[in-house]
Amino acid sequence: MLLRMSTLFVRTLREDPADAEVASHRLLVRAGYIRRSAPGIYTWLPLGLRVLRKVEAVVREEMDAAGTQEVHFPALLPKKPYEVTGRWTEYGPNIFRLKDRKGDDYLLAPTHEEAFTLLVKDLYSSYKDLPLSLYQIQTKYRDEVRPRAGLIRGREFIMKDAYSFDVDDEGLEASYEKQRNAYRRIFTRLGLDFVIVAATSGAMGGSRSEEFLTPTAIGEDTYVRSAGGYTANVEAVTTTTPPPVAFDDAPAAHVEDTPDTPTIDTLVEAANKRFPRDDRPWTAGDTLKNVVLALVQPTGKRELLVVGLPGDREVDLRRLEASVTPAAVEAASEADLAKRPELVRGYIGPAALGENAPTGADGVSLGVRYLLDPRISIGTRWITGANAPGKHVFDLVAGRDFVAAGQDGAANTVEAANVRAGDEAPDGSGPLELARGIEIGHIFALGRKYAKALGLSVLDRNGKATTVTMGSYGIGVSRVLAALAEAHHDTAGLAWPAQIAPAHVHVVATGKDPAVFEAAQSLACTLSGRGIEVLYDDRFKVSPGVKFADAELLGVPLVVVVGRGLAEGVVEVRPRRASEDGPGAEQVPVAEAPDRVAELVDALLSN
Amino acid sequence: MLLRMSTLFVRTLREDPADAEVASHRLLVRAGYIRRSAPGIYTWLPLGLRVLRKVEAVVREEMDAAGTQEVHFPALLPKKPYEVTGRWTEYGPNIFRLKDRKGDDYLLAPTHEEAFTLLVKDLYSSYKDLPLSLYQIQTKYRDEVRPRAGLIRGREFIMKDAYSFDVDDEGLEASYEKQRNAYRRIFTRLGLDFVIVAATSGAMGGSRSEEFLTPTAIGEDTYVRSAGGYTANVEAVTTTTPPPVAFDDAPAAHVEDTPDTPTIDTLVEAANKRFPRDDRPWTAGDTLKNVVLALVQPTGKRELLVVGLPGDREVDLRRLEASVTPAAVEAASEADLAKRPELVRGYIGPAALGENAPTGADGVSLGVRYLLDPRISIGTRWITGANAPGKHVFDLVAGRDFVAAGQDGAANTVEAANVRAGDEAPDGSGPLELARGIEIGHIFALGRKYAKALGLSVLDRNGKATTVTMGSYGIGVSRVLAALAEAHHDTAGLAWPAQIAPAHVHVVATGKDPAVFEAAQSLACTLSGRGIEVLYDDRFKVSPGVKFADAELLGVPLVVVVGRGLAEGVVEVRPRRASEDGPGAEQVPVAEAPDRVAELVDALLSN
Repeated sequence: MLLRMSTLFVRTLREDPADAEVASHRLLVRAGYIRRSAPGIYTWLPLGLRVLRKVEAVVREEMDAAGTQEVHFPALLPKKPYEVTGRWTEYGPNIFRLKDRKGDDYLLAPTHEEAFTLLVKDLYSSYKDLPLSLYQIQTKYRDEVRPRAGLIRGREFIMKDAYSFDVDDEGLEASYEKQRNAYRRIFTRLGLDFVIVAATSGAMGGSRSEEFLTPTAIGEDTYVRSAGGYTANVEAVTTTTPPPVAFDDAPAAHVEDTPDTPTIDTLVEAANKRFPRDDRPWTAGDTLKNVVLALVQPTGKRELLVVGLPGDREVDLRRLEASVTPAAVEAASEADLAKRPELVRGYIGPAALGENAPTGADGVSLGVRYLLDPRISIGTRWITGANAPGKHVFDLVAGRDFVAAGQDGAANTVEAANVRAGDEAPDGSGPLELARGIEIGHIFALGRKYAKALGLSVLDRNGKATTVTMGSYGIGVSRVLAALAEAHHDTAGLAWPAQIAPAHVHVVATGKDPAVFEAAQSLACTLSGRGIEVLYDDRFKVSPGVKFADAELLGVPLVVVVGRGLAEGVVEVRPRRASEDGPGAEQVPVAEAPDRVAELVDALLSN
Repeated sequence: MLLRMSTLFVRTLREDPADAEVASHRLLVRAGYIRRSAPGIYTWLPLGLRVLRKVEAVVREEMDAAGTQEVHFPALLPKKPYEVTGRWTEYGPNIFRLKDRKGDDYLLAPTHEEAFTLLVKDLYSSYKDLPLSLYQIQTKYRDEVRPRAGLIRGREFIMKDAYSFDVDDEGLEASYEKQRNAYRRIFTRLGLDFVIVAATSGAMGGSRSEEFLTPTAIGEDTYVRSAGGYTANVEAVTTTTPPPVAFDDAPAAHVEDTPDTPTIDTLVEAANKRFPRDDRPWTAGDTLKNVVLALVQPTGKRELLVVGLPGDREVDLRRLEASVTPAAVEAASEADLAKRPELVRGYIGPAALGENAPTGADGVSLGVRYLLDPRISIGTRWITGANAPGKHVFDLVAGRDFVAAGQDGAANTVEAANVRAGDEAPDGSGPLELARGIEIGHIFALGRKYAKALGLSVLDRNGKATTVTMGSYGIGVSRVLAALAEAHHDTAGLAWPAQIAPAHVHVVATGKDPAVFEAAQSLACTLSGRGIEVLYDDRFKVSPGVKFADAELLGVPLVVVVGRGLAEGVVEVRPRRASEDGPGAEQVPVAEAPDRVAELVDALLSN
């Protein structure tokens, strides 16, 4: 393969696009790999498409090797099956919906569980047909609130989605492991660091899910790990409920004047000044903070929710959202609060909330729905709002003075508090570290949710109909490309791993000497004839500086400069990015250049 | 490559799907290549996807060889550019439209002229950047009124669309010829008969367009050819206006009683009985028939139109639609007619129509819009309706008694009459034959329509901005697959050309002898190891009859049966479809089977 810069459909840009926040977005646009068509919707230019196809090829090979069979579904799907599973509603404004000329409802599929389930139901009927794993590499759609970071969070994007079908739980376990291992091989082959973390299943449902994250500071996801090997997306971290504390000799709760203490800081300061403890100073962790939020259901229905948590923690909206999915969470608005005069800002306390609030004539509580952090466990003692301006209540004991976690079962606790470095791992494997990453894969043991809803069953060994159990396995292919760009670039531009680079070698002819261009052209053809993919900068009136800058921006892993050295019979061969242990720039005699370049390309490809 | 029937995701069906009218649709569904997901929307199963990829590969290779560079656009595009070119309106109900969560309008693109134009405008600015040709193979959408014939007329389908950009007309001509030649190579390589015919450009616009049709009785398109080499889609056939005829000694028009003659047949019979000619009997060709139709504009606006044509011709709605695009044409409804009491059914004549009708107070005609077939030329004499029940007018002379073709320029003539075998070719190259075909490609010399609308210009040699001239070139990739199935099947099933078959060899193991399955498996592996694509029917409890029927249905070009012959040391090798000159079934010694099969596959592939 030989691409000539003189005719290649590419324009490099010296300026960063105005809307680009992250390196992959900046560089992929500047290097002419992609071009924005609408918010979160991109066009692939020739070089970008070449990289994309190579990423797809790796995914495809490993899917095939894992016995997963490729199919291809429409992107435009009828509403009905998504209505049956409830996702037509659950997705809310996050999917693109449309009507055809007859007025029938369709969606642009964000993921295809329903469609695969129905296809298998359509064709298969016996346990002998299973296990079965299918996949597709296909264009997907999500109407993101905030499309951002170029290919990382787009509205039209390319996914590999696979689905497994098994007759029993052991089968699902095996299929899940097979996909998990295929994912490990895919990301390893692509040269992408990854961690596998426990994850929440969100709208997808199912019993267990794991994410593959590639660590990077610009990642949207936060994950934790402990020295003992626990890893999880921060959304999936569970807080252990402390064992109950005896409160027999706890003093009765008492309301105190705490004027001008609408914040935790001012409250702690006032408490230490006016009601000092003997043993130690009060801290934010002694206070119970009640945060008013609004849940927005996919139907648009809005309801208030108060989350009670220790004053030294914040509400992590994404953790809370993972707990209340498919609802979205927002800060409560002025209008929300105006409807609830009992919520005295800065002084909200349990007595006005949930089951602790007064009941109406029908005996049902009038309080706003109230959920507590698991740390507010039975017997714990708190300073918290007394529901009157300038007043707080002290020695309020959970389980004695207000309904707390564990008392009514799990329903009134919620994972909403932020996770902090140093928190204990839920499995006791030590303190947690936090890091950020991009989600590049997500695998779900779905179980029977979709098969049950859509009636996918097969006859088992005994001729009895049994509901099929499923898994679903996604890789964001276009996002993976962006993650690769994040992982492999420097200030000058992209620096692709050879396996997925748009070409193996970038031959640059410099100067205006026709002999140089002849030699460069000849070398480019020789290399191309040997199966090496060559990008040849044959532009005649472009300065060496511009050509070198373009080579650095485009990021082909090996650069061969044919220029002034030709008079001494040499060309320069240099890696796009010098590594500590790899070779640096070399002057290679022209006659030996094809062999030497081939050798270096082989080495890069077998890395 | 080795696919095993025991695990391959396929189910063959013995029954034709209820909605399938044509062989490709029937067989592709029955053989498990595709599966309907919604009207006109299909899922590709593993075997279908393999054939599709092979068709795409041929298209891609020839596009690349023609110097066309591959890119990939979104399917979801913003409204704006389509509004600028007018196509947002012109497409009417034929495109899928949707709004995003912000209320912005989008469409699912049926074709990408606007998007490519804007991309080139975005990146290029000089004549030195041109010529440029780009293409994509991509999912396209059209909200067809009547999706039908499986992949032949779908609502989600796969297209190769290419676009050329040139600075002048000679450049466009060269780019057009290059694409035209690439198309010839593509269809030749695919083993698909084709004719290239002059076509109408429809909503696409532009100066010249040609269609590639593959001849088949089930084709939706009718085309003509003359012995002298004229070929055209019937929609593009032009009728030569006959030279004016002197009418000085023509008698004055006279109204006659013709009771009960609401049809051409009854009118001709009555005329011959009551007003016989001396020279010859009256024929339908002596009558002027006025057909009332309704034009429906893309905006939904409905207006009546009367087409006048010789009584021996019918209105061809598709020809008329090609003339009035983007409007659609329907028969006039009762409600339409009720609003126009002057249109006396069966007796409508020119005097009540168009410019011939009385005018209102403002001097503007009150008549329904009236267009005439070019044959109703100046001086021609007609029997036609007198706008009263049971009355016709005789000796009504075009150009004397009513406004006719050619008098007011071309605006009042229309190509609406059906074309008949034996009609003269417009270029005088002899009488026309009619045949049917499927449109598999369409190439357009667009000219400057899109570049002008969207402001794509480059600086020419003299530094002056000049509008770019464009071409657009489409191949319906999924439709081509269906056309191949139409061209290559028999009553038993599909019979693919080796180049695009899902596998080269179908190895069938019959009986229950483990030695047979061992030998078959070994042969399948040997062949696969030699790079031959093998589909191996390793199903153990399936009868030979079912396996043979499946092999015939699936249509892999070479079948190898390992069965009872094995006891004598032979396997049977037979082509799926015996040809006159090709080899028939052969008994081949097991040891020689790999060589013989490889030889036959090579021969099939080099066909």
